[in-house]
Amino acid sequence: MSKEITARSEDYSQWYNDLILKGGLADYSAVRGCMVIKPYGFGLWEGMRDVLDAKFKETGHQNAYFPLFIPKSFLSKEAEHVDGFATECAVVTHHRLMKDPEGKGMVVDPSAKLEEELIVRPTSETIIWNTYKDWIQSYRDLPLLINQWANVVRWEMRTRLFLRTAEFLWQEGHTAHATAEEAIAETKQMLEVYADFAENYMALPVVRGVKSPAERFAGALDTYCIEALMQDGKALQAGTSHFLGQNFAKAFDVKFSNKENKLDYVWATSWGVSTRLIGALVMAHSDDDGLVLPPRIAPLQVVIVPIYKGDEQKSKIDAKVSELMAQLKKAGVRVKYDDSDNNRPGWKFAEYEMKGVPVRIALGARDLENNVAEVARRDMKTKESLSLDGLSDRIVALLEEIQQQLYSKALAFRDEHITPADTMEEFERLLDEKTGFISAHWDGTTETELKIKEMTKATIRCIPLNNKLEAGTCILTGKPSTQRVLFARAY
Amino acid sequence: MSKEITARSEDYSQWYNDLILKGGLADYSAVRGCMVIKPYGFGLWEGMRDVLDAKFKETGHQNAYFPLFIPKSFLSKEAEHVDGFATECAVVTHHRLMKDPEGKGMVVDPSAKLEEELIVRPTSETIIWNTYKDWIQSYRDLPLLINQWANVVRWEMRTRLFLRTAEFLWQEGHTAHATAEEAIAETKQMLEVYADFAENYMALPVVRGVKSPAERFAGALDTYCIEALMQDGKALQAGTSHFLGQNFAKAFDVKFSNKENKLDYVWATSWGVSTRLIGALVMAHSDDDGLVLPPRIAPLQVVIVPIYKGDEQKSKIDAKVSELMAQLKKAGVRVKYDDSDNNRPGWKFAEYEMKGVPVRIALGARDLENNVAEVARRDMKTKESLSLDGLSDRIVALLEEIQQQLYSKALAFRDEHITPADTMEEFERLLDEKTGFISAHWDGTTETELKIKEMTKATIRCIPLNNKLEAGTCILTGKPSTQRVLFARAY
Repeated sequence: MSKEITARSEDYSQWYNDLILKGGLADYSAVRGCMVIKPYGFGLWEGMRDVLDAKFKETGHQNAYFPLFIPKSFLSKEAEHVDGFATECAVVTHHRLMKDPEGKGMVVDPSAKLEEELIVRPTSETIIWNTYKDWIQSYRDLPLLINQWANVVRWEMRTRLFLRTAEFLWQEGHTAHATAEEAIAETKQMLEVYADFAENYMALPVVRGVKSPAERFAGALDTYCIEALMQDGKALQAGTSHFLGQNFAKAFDVKFSNKENKLDYVWATSWGVSTRLIGALVMAHSDDDGLVLPPRIAPLQVVIVPIYKGDEQKSKIDAKVSELMAQLKKAGVRVKYDDSDNNRPGWKFAEYEMKGVPVRIALGARDLENNVAEVARRDMKTKESLSLDGLSDRIVALLEEIQQQLYSKALAFRDEHITPADTMEEFERLLDEKTGFISAHWDGTTETELKIKEMTKATIRCIPLNNKLEAGTCILTGKPSTQRVLFARAY
Repeated sequence: MSKEITARSEDYSQWYNDLILKGGLADYSAVRGCMVIKPYGFGLWEGMRDVLDAKFKETGHQNAYFPLFIPKSFLSKEAEHVDGFATECAVVTHHRLMKDPEGKGMVVDPSAKLEEELIVRPTSETIIWNTYKDWIQSYRDLPLLINQWANVVRWEMRTRLFLRTAEFLWQEGHTAHATAEEAIAETKQMLEVYADFAENYMALPVVRGVKSPAERFAGALDTYCIEALMQDGKALQAGTSHFLGQNFAKAFDVKFSNKENKLDYVWATSWGVSTRLIGALVMAHSDDDGLVLPPRIAPLQVVIVPIYKGDEQKSKIDAKVSELMAQLKKAGVRVKYDDSDNNRPGWKFAEYEMKGVPVRIALGARDLENNVAEVARRDMKTKESLSLDGLSDRIVALLEEIQQQLYSKALAFRDEHITPADTMEEFERLLDEKTGFISAHWDGTTETELKIKEMTKATIRCIPLNNKLEAGTCILTGKPSTQRVLFARAY
């Protein structure tokens, strides 16, 4: 099985695709740029969704659901917003098919043309703020803290499984506040929710930062982000949280009477993470033998494989396993006993290695006699023989060790790959030789940022929050700068 | 508050809309036929989804996700299927907007026309069976038991909040089997899962049955259904489970090699319930004062309202409530303490009555002195003063009593409204006078069924499973018949 995976060193991009397809996470579909999320990949998404959803609810948010379709005129109401999304819109123009008069199957019925075209939502600010107009009259209606789990469509020309697909699943929070301060606090709070999730569940260290104007969400005053580093040294934006100011309130005329009984426009935020996180997870931890999943979000944390000859051995093993399973389940461990006789143990080992199950327990007849089991860690590829006495406690601790180890390893890698550059020459050399984030001075203009992007394909990933101020000069223009920002080539 | 609801006796349809809008379940949207599901309504859906999802997983199904878009040619591959959905298709024809050359905002970019139009899925059989072709080769790949939670779009001309909307949320199970027997068993199993959910969670008695050919799902060999009765005597189809035979396997060429190593087409089922269930729930139990929700799926089961003057009284009540809340939460009860001082107790009583919260506890300073609380049941509108000692146990039992009472009441109503008719005259009189299901002999032909529909607007809701055989004659044609079927006017 593992032989079929392309090595990272050989072709990183093919390695990634092999993992997604052969690990059973997703499949290509017949629809351009859209993927099928297979049960194992969807299980991963369900686990991520449940953790995030609980965090949203803890912070006072409620879920709701808004229409899939956005009238074309709505999208146009916020000028920067429509500029950002116009080139990626799937447009519904008709509402009926009919038999082809020439007998060639079904055709669009020309008499069923919509009066106004509908856009399949690329994001929902416009339809939501048009609704908020009816829901918000007074400061008593604020804050309004709503989240939506939904599918969205952005017609990307170059797609990659999970990382960039025409349709993807995500959550989008849309909140309304009485003051700018409150909205900014919400924006930062949700960024921290994302960072906490990435680091403590996905074992993915992230830089918390704010985007340069060129990289902002279309319609935002500020876009906060978490940026992660992949094993090939490219950066990946893992989540964003936007302070939208009063832009959408003005576009949709959403005013409220404040405590002084004066009318003012409402302040807004929006924030989202998507199935793209699965791509980040895969690229951050996996190896040439398959997926490596952090225990806290692995759909399956432990698999038990029996090794036996004949029914008598099998039934003894079964009895012991059923005891162990009960203990593990009681401790909240997601565990499976794979005693199917369709495949041999070696095939199963390779299969669960491919799928990134954190811990594998093999139990044979001789093990049973010796009161031990063979316990293998997916991440380190180590095996040890452990006593069956107290094994479930040991496994629970081991899962936690693996979680921490994956995070430490990814953090060390990330920290080794943040390198300062003080000249354009050094910058370009580092990009090619070492890759990763490059910390450099920038004169603060979009013009310079775009020039550097054109020359090197690197963009400003973020201006880190709590950045150290430091006098310097822009690597491109030599103009004065007060802080370094993080550049990288990115997914 | 309650004054604003139209009485059922006055205008049933307006009563229903009032409940949905004023109960905070949903709102109209700017997009024709699409609704916004508000947080309270979405909370209800989340609860229903979680119960059903657990049942699907218990019966061996896994969730996955398939593309929103279906190539037009796919929809056409199964002849009856496309006939059933062609007139309700939202069609995507372009993938980009551009600035209007004449300066009038944004227009569809004519150069971005899709080679093949995409249909926003009205149901996913075709895109899924096109995928299953790659997933199924051998009997070892079967059964394939997959479910999807998704949004779907059917361009209905006459829409009603929850009952019939252009976009709705649902789940659709799509399973593949090696034999017809296995597929039929799956179809029936999932119908029973739905029936169990409707009766034991929604407190909604249902008739399990099979559809007449005219009412079958487009592309199915048999459609099983659960049919419920609303308070106005109209029937509502609450869930369907389809035996699809080999129709989709043949349309998408999905063959497998069986144990004898011979190629055969795969057998299929599909089954679904949707946000329509919320409409059924509302119409089955509610009254002229607002929603009445069965405890097992009420987002909020108990609300506690303090009645006090001044901070000293308040803090004594707070202390007692916090004790009670802890006990209720420990028992798994969804409870809220509404001590907001924006509104008076009377306003809160009306608000929670409107929202159908099953139990309201009011606690005043004098109650506290007497060691009692006032406990009000939403369903019966009765109040009693109960000792604070052991109150949480009493509340848990009361929630269960309410659940049973709602079911018994709905069952008695339903059973009173199944009436036999032996002549067309009797049939028409019953439809107008008594409403409900009418049990009548039918000659088994679609022609007769359609004629009766044309004359009376009543359709065959189902042929009940385990129907009693009984010789008779068709009410319309007088031809011989072997069993009665259930007719009704329906939503």
